[in-house]
Amino acid sequence: MPMARISLRRGKSPDYLRALADGVYSAMHEAYDVPANDRFQLIHQHEPHEMFCDRYYLGGPRSEDFVLVAITAGRPRSAATKQAFYGRLVELLAQSPGIDPEDVMVVIITTDAEGWSFGGGRACITAAGLPT
Amino acid sequence: MPMARISLRRGKSPDYLRALADGVYSAMHEAYDVPANDRFQLIHQHEPHEMFCDRYYLGGPRSEDFVLVAITAGRPRSAATKQAFYGRLVELLAQSPGIDPEDVMVVIITTDAEGWSFGGGRACITAAGLPT
Amino acid sequence: MPMARISLRRGKSPDYLRALADGVYSAMHEAYDVPANDRFQLIHQHEPHEMFCDRYYLGGPRSEDFVLVAITAGRPRSAATKQAFYGRLVELLAQSPGIDPEDVMVVIITTDAEGWSFGGGRACITAAGLPT
Repeated sequence: MPMARISLRRGKSPDYLRALADGVYSAMHEAYDVPANDRFQLIHQHEPHEMFCDRYYLGGPRSEDFVLVAITAGRPRSAATKQAFYGRLVELLAQSPGIDPEDVMVVIITTDAEGWSFGGGRACITAAGLPT
Repeated sequence: MPMARISLRRGKSPDYLRALADGVYSAMHEAYDVPANDRFQLIHQHEPHEMFCDRYYLGGPRSEDFVLVAITAGRPRSAATKQAFYGRLVELLAQSPGIDPEDVMVVIITTDAEGWSFGGGRACITAAGLPT
Repeated sequence: MPMARISLRRGKSPDYLRALADGVYSAMHEAYDVPANDRFQLIHQHEPHEMFCDRYYLGGPRSEDFVLVAITAGRPRSAATKQAFYGRLVELLAQSPGIDPEDVMVVIITTDAEGWSFGGGRACITAAGLPT
């Protein structure tokens, strides 16, 4: 049920963007209890003058490859699940497309299942019986 | 009080985008208890390699015309109101600009009225007495 | 800990955008209890046909310079702190880059500290001991 907005500096190739999005999806599926095929991702590319992110605050150093992954989830997960997800995410993105773990920032917002409609005007929990 | 981010594949005409935004606004006004003129909408157009949305998860098939409407609302609504809104939204967008109901996804986040300032540095509930 | 998405009409200079982002950061640091260097800002520029914002709803008149600042914060603040932030923000943006206070809209969403990872796959509160 989650959706993700993935923001980074403009200029990467479509292949790079796909590998990045694949990694975010795989980490969510493997470690954040997200069902297979539950994948809704939007990539926002920003010019250098459209992105101001501190290089050292609580991490870093951050580089030009910095990525901010903003997730809206349909139900809460435990702190342990979140931690596992953060860890798996940086592992996968380090493998492909090759992003330094310090360049990966995540923010998760949680809303309720009623707030989702996946199509056809159907409320999510009506359609699926249970939230995902 | 809601604001909406409307994401779709790049390439539609300004008229199409206006019809889409009009439909989102009208459905919110008619079915989601949003006051007249309470309209704050941002459209994000994405290249094909900037948008990864599963074609069949809990709905579909989704096409190139897929639209994701992400709403931030200023107060909760009932499940029934949400359901009515989802239904009215796909009805209106099917009429104009002509979007298949399975291509319309909605995610609603709720925050509190204090979190809104509509201008002039005034907190929303200070200015208006009551949240909208 | 907050991140901000700043949306406005496309066409301003990089210097203008930097002044705008500087003002948002400074107001958060001075009035919203945000630590120094805790700065993560994304600017979204929109064409006229990608932005539909009412000119008079609960404020205005809004002009072509309208800015919507959408903040995701890591912990709640009091109504008084929010009010102080809104006031300081319009003050600073009026000074530079010179934005009319009626053109500044703010929406704040709050999530919890666990939902943040600033890098390296570390959960925020694990890394920092305390949420910021």
